Amino acid sequence: MTTGGSRLDPWVDSYAARANAMRASEIRALFAVASRPEVVSLAGGMPYVQALPVEMLTATAQRLLVERGPVALQYGSGQGDVTLREQILDVVGEVGVTAHPDDIVVTTGSQMALDLVTRVFCDPGDVVIVEAPSYVGALGVFRAFECEVIHVAMDDEGLVPQALQEALDQAAAAGKRVKLIYTIPSFHNPAGVTQGPERRAEILSIAQSAGVLLLEDDPYGLLGFEGEPPRAIRADDAEGVIYLGSFSKTIASGLRVGWAIAPHGVREKLVLASEAAVLCPSNYAQMTVSEYLATQPWREQIKTFREVYRERRDALLESLQALMPEGTTWTIPAGGFYSWLTLPEGLDATAMLPRAVANLVAYVPGTGFYVDGQGRQNLRLSYCYPEPDRIREGVRRLAAVIEGELELVETFGTSHVLNRVTGSSVPAPDLA
Amino acid sequence: MTTGGSRLDPWVDSYAARANAMRASEIRALFAVASRPEVVSLAGGMPYVQALPVEMLTATAQRLLVERGPVALQYGSGQGDVTLREQILDVVGEVGVTAHPDDIVVTTGSQMALDLVTRVFCDPGDVVIVEAPSYVGALGVFRAFECEVIHVAMDDEGLVPQALQEALDQAAAAGKRVKLIYTIPSFHNPAGVTQGPERRAEILSIAQSAGVLLLEDDPYGLLGFEGEPPRAIRADDAEGVIYLGSFSKTIASGLRVGWAIAPHGVREKLVLASEAAVLCPSNYAQMTVSEYLATQPWREQIKTFREVYRERRDALLESLQALMPEGTTWTIPAGGFYSWLTLPEGLDATAMLPRAVANLVAYVPGTGFYVDGQGRQNLRLSYCYPEPDRIREGVRRLAAVIEGELELVETFGTSHVLNRVTGSSVPAPDLA
Repeated sequence: MTTGGSRLDPWVDSYAARANAMRASEIRALFAVASRPEVVSLAGGMPYVQALPVEMLTATAQRLLVERGPVALQYGSGQGDVTLREQILDVVGEVGVTAHPDDIVVTTGSQMALDLVTRVFCDPGDVVIVEAPSYVGALGVFRAFECEVIHVAMDDEGLVPQALQEALDQAAAAGKRVKLIYTIPSFHNPAGVTQGPERRAEILSIAQSAGVLLLEDDPYGLLGFEGEPPRAIRADDAEGVIYLGSFSKTIASGLRVGWAIAPHGVREKLVLASEAAVLCPSNYAQMTVSEYLATQPWREQIKTFREVYRERRDALLESLQALMPEGTTWTIPAGGFYSWLTLPEGLDATAMLPRAVANLVAYVPGTGFYVDGQGRQNLRLSYCYPEPDRIREGVRRLAAVIEGELELVETFGTSHVLNRVTGSSVPAPDLA
Repeated sequence: MTTGGSRLDPWVDSYAARANAMRASEIRALFAVASRPEVVSLAGGMPYVQALPVEMLTATAQRLLVERGPVALQYGSGQGDVTLREQILDVVGEVGVTAHPDDIVVTTGSQMALDLVTRVFCDPGDVVIVEAPSYVGALGVFRAFECEVIHVAMDDEGLVPQALQEALDQAAAAGKRVKLIYTIPSFHNPAGVTQGPERRAEILSIAQSAGVLLLEDDPYGLLGFEGEPPRAIRADDAEGVIYLGSFSKTIASGLRVGWAIAPHGVREKLVLASEAAVLCPSNYAQMTVSEYLATQPWREQIKTFREVYRERRDALLESLQALMPEGTTWTIPAGGFYSWLTLPEGLDATAMLPRAVANLVAYVPGTGFYVDGQGRQNLRLSYCYPEPDRIREGVRRLAAVIEGELELVETFGTSHVLNRVTGSSVPAPDLA
């Protein structure tokens, strides 16, 4: 008998405990709708790879295959290609990081580095401290390894040191094992804020005093709109920080090449974990990146990306300033892909999303960036992918939706609330 | 203070329990030596990608980037590219598997599929039944997720049904939860044997009766030397089998593209696990494979690979037959990459390895393919990578080493035994 859409799963009693924490987003179907071309999506975090001239890569791929095909097409080392690891040192040099190629583990995107770090450090019930809000992909990994995730407040300069100290103290008092402090210091996803140098020093000092490893995630560090790239926390402590980086936003996300820089003993564990997970990262992808870095003007290309994203950020901020109803606030990103918007009192971003999509604009509701139901009044706006005019049109539509919600609140005392949405309320990265 | 080679790891008390199961091979350094060009390596399992004409891929890469660059360079779906999933159905059709594209999850090599399946099903202490010997990469994953691994005897037709039944009965009697039966039915790594159709049916029937999921790993299924490819077990049960496949041996391992075909509910979990692990597999690698399958004579190319490996298999078997001392036996592979050799009584393959490497030939000692110290009298010989003449030379050197060991045993009653080697005694795949 075919049971159609609600097939029974004969293996439902066989899954591991950790599989129970893996849940599909209930609003994923909505994001599938939101990926239709008539919808302006301010939801997904897709880099604008169209800004990368395709000739830069065709020449690269051709040369790679002709000159080093047998190596590029073969298994490689679990730790990653050694030439690429040397080149990564040039890249991280831009944020002040110095290291040895042997300190680097190349991964299938930095998401996999997050996965490996968590796998190596976290037993079920171990605590990971994260920002409030935090990157949904990291929350997914921490959940998958059954960590207890504790959110710590942010302000306009990111993670609040005093709140971090209090969280550590409370965890210690409760006898909990805090394994990691996970932070995105530069151009935060989703909050759009950046820690200043003093803030970074304070956070590092707190982590060091507590003897807790700092997990610094820096995918956007080179995508600042003014001045020099912010100096990484890892630049000031090689033993207490694991630094994660990625080529997804500076070259192309479709290559899936990221990395971790870790203290010696940790790096050894990460390599073993990586070998169990994938044997080795793709030589083909790694050597494409390596060839690109060796032969193409990659620093110039990053400048091009910065210009593209700055123009879009400006389009977003100007439109928000011009159009958003009173009581709406948002962060001013100095780089990266995102602004974090707070709706007027009484509005609910999750409940509002279906009406936004009906009005042909999409965003990610704030709850997806918390494990504890916070964020209902927030939403994340991405300006990385749509052209500036589309961004302006999207904000126009969103403002109209918010105005409509405000009228509902005025009339009925509350906006129409959806059933409570659980799980990871964020679209897959390709649903921009 | 710098402590030089034996640096202390300040994070040694922070690791998860599962990280304790991640150990580097003590003989890895030896394999690094064995990768020197003067050594004939019969150790690694590197496919002979040189047999793939590089033009087939340069044209593919070029067309892909020019025609679909912005998609190939972008994030993709967590489940994998839908066109590629349709094409995978053509490939698995060769071993009798029929499925829906939606049943497939594309992974970063089939190693990652092993990782995801284990992550989804296995709590610490859960039992996984494997062949004796079994694929070292699978043992590494099961160990990384703290499974109890139980080896079941093989004969010349692979996994012995009666032994499987006994292992299941014993586990049930002991109150253990058996989550997976892991098998490589075709051209086994490392044993070089293949289950016949009746054997497969018996094994499937036992798994079904026990209500245990069968994990069928089939990287070599299309690389048989005679007749049609063996029909996959999955061809006869879509609900009780997870089927793993890979393009590593039929196209190129450096692309890292593999897949799992799983029952509906399991597939959903695997996609969620994959998103946590890597967000999505590389669009660039997937679409390279897809373009290759769509435009190149891939079935002809697989025939070429078969011819290459058959010639090498023949070189190995003829040399073994001509040169090995009495009391040495080996399996006769009908496809794939490996023969499993049993040394004469009293010899120890692990202890012998340093002398073999000194004599400029390398192999993998049998203990790496067991979790329980079995296999000391065994070794794995790979014929996939060296040219036939090198294989003959390698066997000549190996025969001399074995003769030397036999003389030692005759003189002293035992061969000189190394300290006990622990951990995964297998080289990284690039150390061929």
